[in-house]
Amino acid sequence: MKLIEGREVAKALRKQTPSIAEALRARGVNPTLAVVVPTDDEGTAWYVRSIARAADRVGVNCRIEQLAQPDHDDLVAKLEALSADENVHGIICQTPLPENVKLADVAAHIAPSKDVDGANPMSLGRLAAGLETFAPATAEAVMVLFEAIGFNLDGKDITMVGRSTVVGTPAALLMLDHGATVTICHRQTVDLEAECRTADAVVVAAGAPGLITAKHLKPGAIVIDVGTTPTEDGQLVGDVDFESASEVAGAITPVPGGVGPVTTQLLLRNTVVAAQRQNPA
Amino acid sequence: MKLIEGREVAKALRKQTPSIAEALRARGVNPTLAVVVPTDDEGTAWYVRSIARAADRVGVNCRIEQLAQPDHDDLVAKLEALSADENVHGIICQTPLPENVKLADVAAHIAPSKDVDGANPMSLGRLAAGLETFAPATAEAVMVLFEAIGFNLDGKDITMVGRSTVVGTPAALLMLDHGATVTICHRQTVDLEAECRTADAVVVAAGAPGLITAKHLKPGAIVIDVGTTPTEDGQLVGDVDFESASEVAGAITPVPGGVGPVTTQLLLRNTVVAAQRQNPA
Repeated sequence: MKLIEGREVAKALRKQTPSIAEALRARGVNPTLAVVVPTDDEGTAWYVRSIARAADRVGVNCRIEQLAQPDHDDLVAKLEALSADENVHGIICQTPLPENVKLADVAAHIAPSKDVDGANPMSLGRLAAGLETFAPATAEAVMVLFEAIGFNLDGKDITMVGRSTVVGTPAALLMLDHGATVTICHRQTVDLEAECRTADAVVVAAGAPGLITAKHLKPGAIVIDVGTTPTEDGQLVGDVDFESASEVAGAITPVPGGVGPVTTQLLLRNTVVAAQRQNPA
Repeated sequence: MKLIEGREVAKALRKQTPSIAEALRARGVNPTLAVVVPTDDEGTAWYVRSIARAADRVGVNCRIEQLAQPDHDDLVAKLEALSADENVHGIICQTPLPENVKLADVAAHIAPSKDVDGANPMSLGRLAAGLETFAPATAEAVMVLFEAIGFNLDGKDITMVGRSTVVGTPAALLMLDHGATVTICHRQTVDLEAECRTADAVVVAAGAPGLITAKHLKPGAIVIDVGTTPTEDGQLVGDVDFESASEVAGAITPVPGGVGPVTTQLLLRNTVVAAQRQNPA
């Protein structure tokens, strides 16, 4: 069983960003990612600090916009102001959101050119239509990890567990676009084991620790674990029962150290790419 | 084997539209569907005439906008003008499009409120995100036909053959949203028989006559045939080998007389709904 080292993949991605950032600054453009934080949730705060640190290391300016108990209109106003601000090149909106607010609804107010985490429904629609767009960074990270281990999706059977707007659905669309036959499962799926056991790879983004075990896997299957559930002692656990699954799988991403670090680097790379497009030489 | 009579389902849908159209006209609003025709293809002309006849029967005004060899910019200009025209409530753009023009690219210029065939990537993205929107009428027709025969998708295994922006992808998203576990196949799928044979229902939109036979079906499976390939003698044939499949299937839509008439009625219903929303009482 091969461990898919997300941190190593992230390191390789991290090499490209600083020189682009540097070239932008030489032209007077300070590549800036705005992170809108509509919650005082501790897990979110931890993640936002980790983005800020990672941004700092690659020369991207991270502007944290903490909002105190915003409602729908406050969030829309903030996202529209950042979309109009020429000193901001990428915008992401953290979750959890206030009650009754849907991410896709407010994210429709992120300018598509700055939508570096593909949260605007227009970005998702362009992805579904095969047009150029920023994909949600987590979904893109899944593709980067497949590529890193030399797994070619063309003609492969992939089971995607989870149908969320931010991971499951866009990851399925990207895998389809790369030639995979994709089965999308979720909590209404009756026989998850059967749906997974025929797959060449299983991607799981269900937020259900231990959901995927050896019983779900064909020998040699690739397993990408997108789950990140916080434990009481402040750790993160994935959706895969690693010990059990590793007896059968061909390769697995660990949690932490799998999808997460790659996602962060893709957000930062997307930010410098967005800054380049907004400021052609 | 039950024949799924699309014409009967369409008749039922047709009952609701005239009274809405009538009520709109009583308020001075003439519900109007603009059909942009960028081709002189004979099959397209035939289909456009059939929409115009159906519109006439339910009291919807059909404005046909024939364009002679338009390029990308001509199409965008026309769609933007119709989007701005308050006497137009629904807009559809026929295919085939001029070479190198993508439907999703030009359809991004259809106002979402008038996008009665869900062709704007924003509509597809909103569909993927579970937000209210007009779905592509053909994809919606698949759902209406399932409902007409009392087939509840919750927990069912469905195989979708085809991943196009106008049918396969949106139909898969709608079926997922209704609780089905969905496998999406296409021309890179290695073993189509195996992917179909476990499914409770097979929806096929591949444009490949005779693709689906008895060998692809579990006994009793529901088959929805979205294919419409014109034959040399001016008929339409679907993607299902009807004679073979009908020995195994539980129910099948015929071609013609299955998905097509339902799609047309949904376009017209969407047009009067759009007109209502644009002209609140």
